[in-house]
Amino acid sequence: MYPNKIGVKNSTGCLDLRSDTVTRASPEMRRAMAEAEVGDDVYEEDPTVNSLEERCAKLFGKESAIFVTTGTMGNLLAIMAHTMGRGEVIVGRTSHIHRWEVGGYARIAGVCATTLPINHDGTISLDSIEECLCIGDNHRPQTKLICLENTHNFVGGKALPLDYISKVRKLADPYNVKIHIDGARIYNAAIKHNISVAEIVKDADSIQMCFSKGLGAPIGSILVGSKEFIDQARLDRKLLGGGWRQAGHLAAAAHYALDHAMEIVTKDHERAEKLAKSIKAFNSSKIKVDDLNMTNMVIVTVDDPEAAVATLQKHGVLAIHFDKNRIRAVLHKDIDDEGVEKAISAFRALV
Amino acid sequence: MYPNKIGVKNSTGCLDLRSDTVTRASPEMRRAMAEAEVGDDVYEEDPTVNSLEERCAKLFGKESAIFVTTGTMGNLLAIMAHTMGRGEVIVGRTSHIHRWEVGGYARIAGVCATTLPINHDGTISLDSIEECLCIGDNHRPQTKLICLENTHNFVGGKALPLDYISKVRKLADPYNVKIHIDGARIYNAAIKHNISVAEIVKDADSIQMCFSKGLGAPIGSILVGSKEFIDQARLDRKLLGGGWRQAGHLAAAAHYALDHAMEIVTKDHERAEKLAKSIKAFNSSKIKVDDLNMTNMVIVTVDDPEAAVATLQKHGVLAIHFDKNRIRAVLHKDIDDEGVEKAISAFRALV
Amino acid sequence: MYPNKIGVKNSTGCLDLRSDTVTRASPEMRRAMAEAEVGDDVYEEDPTVNSLEERCAKLFGKESAIFVTTGTMGNLLAIMAHTMGRGEVIVGRTSHIHRWEVGGYARIAGVCATTLPINHDGTISLDSIEECLCIGDNHRPQTKLICLENTHNFVGGKALPLDYISKVRKLADPYNVKIHIDGARIYNAAIKHNISVAEIVKDADSIQMCFSKGLGAPIGSILVGSKEFIDQARLDRKLLGGGWRQAGHLAAAAHYALDHAMEIVTKDHERAEKLAKSIKAFNSSKIKVDDLNMTNMVIVTVDDPEAAVATLQKHGVLAIHFDKNRIRAVLHKDIDDEGVEKAISAFRALV
Amino acid sequence: MYPNKIGVKNSTGCLDLRSDTVTRASPEMRRAMAEAEVGDDVYEEDPTVNSLEERCAKLFGKESAIFVTTGTMGNLLAIMAHTMGRGEVIVGRTSHIHRWEVGGYARIAGVCATTLPINHDGTISLDSIEECLCIGDNHRPQTKLICLENTHNFVGGKALPLDYISKVRKLADPYNVKIHIDGARIYNAAIKHNISVAEIVKDADSIQMCFSKGLGAPIGSILVGSKEFIDQARLDRKLLGGGWRQAGHLAAAAHYALDHAMEIVTKDHERAEKLAKSIKAFNSSKIKVDDLNMTNMVIVTVDDPEAAVATLQKHGVLAIHFDKNRIRAVLHKDIDDEGVEKAISAFRALV
Repeated sequence: MYPNKIGVKNSTGCLDLRSDTVTRASPEMRRAMAEAEVGDDVYEEDPTVNSLEERCAKLFGKESAIFVTTGTMGNLLAIMAHTMGRGEVIVGRTSHIHRWEVGGYARIAGVCATTLPINHDGTISLDSIEECLCIGDNHRPQTKLICLENTHNFVGGKALPLDYISKVRKLADPYNVKIHIDGARIYNAAIKHNISVAEIVKDADSIQMCFSKGLGAPIGSILVGSKEFIDQARLDRKLLGGGWRQAGHLAAAAHYALDHAMEIVTKDHERAEKLAKSIKAFNSSKIKVDDLNMTNMVIVTVDDPEAAVATLQKHGVLAIHFDKNRIRAVLHKDIDDEGVEKAISAFRALV
Repeated sequence: MYPNKIGVKNSTGCLDLRSDTVTRASPEMRRAMAEAEVGDDVYEEDPTVNSLEERCAKLFGKESAIFVTTGTMGNLLAIMAHTMGRGEVIVGRTSHIHRWEVGGYARIAGVCATTLPINHDGTISLDSIEECLCIGDNHRPQTKLICLENTHNFVGGKALPLDYISKVRKLADPYNVKIHIDGARIYNAAIKHNISVAEIVKDADSIQMCFSKGLGAPIGSILVGSKEFIDQARLDRKLLGGGWRQAGHLAAAAHYALDHAMEIVTKDHERAEKLAKSIKAFNSSKIKVDDLNMTNMVIVTVDDPEAAVATLQKHGVLAIHFDKNRIRAVLHKDIDDEGVEKAISAFRALV
Repeated sequence: MYPNKIGVKNSTGCLDLRSDTVTRASPEMRRAMAEAEVGDDVYEEDPTVNSLEERCAKLFGKESAIFVTTGTMGNLLAIMAHTMGRGEVIVGRTSHIHRWEVGGYARIAGVCATTLPINHDGTISLDSIEECLCIGDNHRPQTKLICLENTHNFVGGKALPLDYISKVRKLADPYNVKIHIDGARIYNAAIKHNISVAEIVKDADSIQMCFSKGLGAPIGSILVGSKEFIDQARLDRKLLGGGWRQAGHLAAAAHYALDHAMEIVTKDHERAEKLAKSIKAFNSSKIKVDDLNMTNMVIVTVDDPEAAVATLQKHGVLAIHFDKNRIRAVLHKDIDDEGVEKAISAFRALV
Repeated sequence: MYPNKIGVKNSTGCLDLRSDTVTRASPEMRRAMAEAEVGDDVYEEDPTVNSLEERCAKLFGKESAIFVTTGTMGNLLAIMAHTMGRGEVIVGRTSHIHRWEVGGYARIAGVCATTLPINHDGTISLDSIEECLCIGDNHRPQTKLICLENTHNFVGGKALPLDYISKVRKLADPYNVKIHIDGARIYNAAIKHNISVAEIVKDADSIQMCFSKGLGAPIGSILVGSKEFIDQARLDRKLLGGGWRQAGHLAAAAHYALDHAMEIVTKDHERAEKLAKSIKAFNSSKIKVDDLNMTNMVIVTVDDPEAAVATLQKHGVLAIHFDKNRIRAVLHKDIDDEGVEKAISAFRALV
């Protein structure tokens, strides 16, 4: 049983470490949005959207891309296009796709999923994947797709090991199974490994990345893959009600976010590390940091997460009750060095 | 058979009368977007979204509202929430919901539709509705919902007769059937009848209105109804991947659009009437205006719509090939009086 | 509004003219069922099922066939296989597929339908079909399939005009649209026109025929089409839970039904004609026979169908309240010449 | 990876131990089928179906029951009725519902599943269930249902421990989660534990049992639960195309099967034990019997299952290649004591 409330409602005046989704556009990003050249994206005539889609296709080393409302929409479109509504996908049991997207892969895409346990490093064990791969018959649905999440949120934002996706690729190929990366935070993974995002997704068929998390844009995700795949996703985006009009305003924010991604995300990692090390240095049995091998998230084990979250809030810091004995604090562009100091002080109150 | 291409791709330099979806935000609207106070709307913490939803609920005289990506999403969420995936809806055969939303009511909402013919005034005949209302049994799905479109696009943007919806309500009540208004252009209907939008939808259970058509905002629609209905739509919006984050930037544009809706739409109607009367005054057998009882659209009957559209484009005006012998020109805020004159000149070339 | 109760519950002792679905297996048919050679049909090892499927493929002049539980299942599998869950079908508004199969084409097959009016002869007008055929784009679903019903139940079991399906074929071909015949009572149509069932379906891609209606078997329908189509239907039959085991017992009844189909159905038509002519000969303004150009159904127009059905029942005859001013009586193998005389007497009570 | 071919096609002349689905009706059962009193079950007028449904409701100690075509259909209807198309179910990863029913729970019922590992005794660990139970929010689907399989096929037909279902019940209740038993072989479980089937399912909300497996009837399953639940299933059975007509012929076979269930299943267990012990007594490293705590299945571990199945077939016995190093032989009413001796001889050839 995991808590179902994500965070605390009233955020007034607090330092908000609940998620990197809470970032607000900077003045420069707002100017970019206001000045964007736009057109009707349903007619594929919005120049800023078009240039963003081209930029992202190139960035990830794939043929084509589509700008969508949310990561959930991007992941759903990917599953729809890869499976065409028949067969089975393999996903992590604590993956965002399985657990926090309202089961859209079943209700809308119409496919069932074998949900496998996630290891501490965010991977699904290769043996368990191999055991589930299946050539369909009249009883069993064909395995069509493996979905990986990089960085994997529920293990605390871990970047998957560098050679892991290649190994999954080798298992998948004989079954003609595709690989989709839920890369909502793929920049965090790439920067962690100090390689390009193209390199990190080279063995995947498709990737979804969010501009609205650590990258700091208000709205929007990009789905990237082959031309045929993206053409199908474009049809299905309309079906979901995602065919927006002058999206160039949001695409301009996404462009700005990409321009500054390296610098912002690198800073977030440094600050997360600082926070984690400081908590570790408390050397307290009441509050433990799981692991220092993370990206922009700090996962803290406590006896009573609900009480811990309340105490932090009293000290002006919002975190979320993550599961039965963990709380999560996420660093993002709206938390500067001073913010980290404030967070450290608040966590000290838990000792 | 209707043409499947909506409009001409290359719009460079032309006066764009293809649709009122092509409007671009004015400098003032862009400033409102840039200066918006925002928060994370998934946590229901975006103040500008919250105030927009409250404003719209009040505007339409209903309990609650939700800001969504598109009119298609708003209509789909309405059908999902009213039917909960079982039963039948009654829709016009040339309604946007049936014909231009990729069949989402069937594929996603899981309901079938009886598609009835649309009269010249945009209504579905009351007799045909009555004949189709059905208390379900183990063979027949229960009628759950009647969807009306106001103004009705395919008959040229006609506002439904003022007492029509009340009459449908009387038929529907004994069967406990709900009424949803696809009011993508409900402002045009209200202004045509010179009454408030609340008055015009008083007999409906839910309404969807687009900010991104005649109202001139870049993105976004509002869905309005009872609190319980909107709560359900909020759950399902997440499912569709429509749960966006700092949507306040777009909500600010929608607020601005509402502030100026009366004035803009009134002007559009005057200009549409001017264009229509001018074409009528050509008194040509080659190009006829259907009807002067319209809102912001001018529907012109020609022998060869494809040729007519091409000729107009040569004269710097984009219109769309609407069906086998009609073309459509839509007035909107980016076409001023000078634009109307230019349009009249271009249409003269068709005589 | 049509009545939603199909018939009267307590049938004890009455002559049952409610439907040809009420037939009971004769002693000879029961013997055939009991003596059937059977195997596991999920493994495709039931010899009687296999021979029935081969016989039916040949009978209808197509490549392959599958024996299914009901006509509803056969029609649903056809729509699933022809559309693969995307696009639109064209169906009659009073067709069985649209109205009496719980909307499965939408809820399960995931496709929307344009529902067109049915003419008095059971056809959909060619003009209205032509108007709705559509090459899909990102707004409009592609037309994939036209479903015709032959004989058409709701117009009183009329056989479609002989050249009608060929004309539909000509319209459909340029759009690559398939034709499915809901031939639940296709034998009645073939015998009416005095041609073979193969000849009558030669322009269709698939046909579903029921053994459990006029043919008199207890359970089962056959779906016929190309090998690829039937292979797909076999996969989807399992999905619906229709993959039965020793179905050879039922297939033996179906074989017996086919052996005697000509003779039984011919007799039903003669008796229906006799009943209809007798009612017409009453020359009463209170009870009118629509039409003598029918097959095994007699449709009678009365002022108060509910009262008429009750009166008939008092006279030992069950009929059904068909719509607001019609009742339906269906002839079938369990009504012999004496039964027809009894029915005539009962109907006389309505004068 | 598991093999996808279930069994060997050509069964001529061999002793068929592939499954208990291959049983053929005895002469007495065939007579019962032939002599059945029948009616139209769509009108709920088939007396033999009605009496079977009443008998089964009583047998399992629940309010109501419905006779359906297959176990797959019964399970699917249960999931549809318990969830109404929203939320999540918990199922075993190697359960029949997840793995051998073509993913209908997702494609048709529209729900996602958390698939948990099955222990050697057929249970899902209580801890893992507890961890997954969830009160839904706008991200997470609500847990609605836990599906258990008793006996559990993939672990070799093990009966769940007697107190297990009560323990699951205790976990489920605070979340208002229902329990469905896929009791395709529930008689085997009850007889194994020497209690009634009512007792064994007392903590479940619904049960599906097959007549066409060890009970030896040709076709049909029963779904049992509350009146409201079965009423819903009856509506949805029609939707799936499972609303059959004179099903009394099959219900008569099911009645006969119930009359003889105790005796038949008891014998099957004795013979399975004999076969298993004999193989164990070979004391060979090449062919091992997993476990003697089974019901009517014998699971044999071998190095090369494909070769083993071929060798057995050469010796006149059909078994199935179950997974990468196991083969399965199932005892059923068509295998008598002589058959067991023949099977033992064939297995000896594997040593």
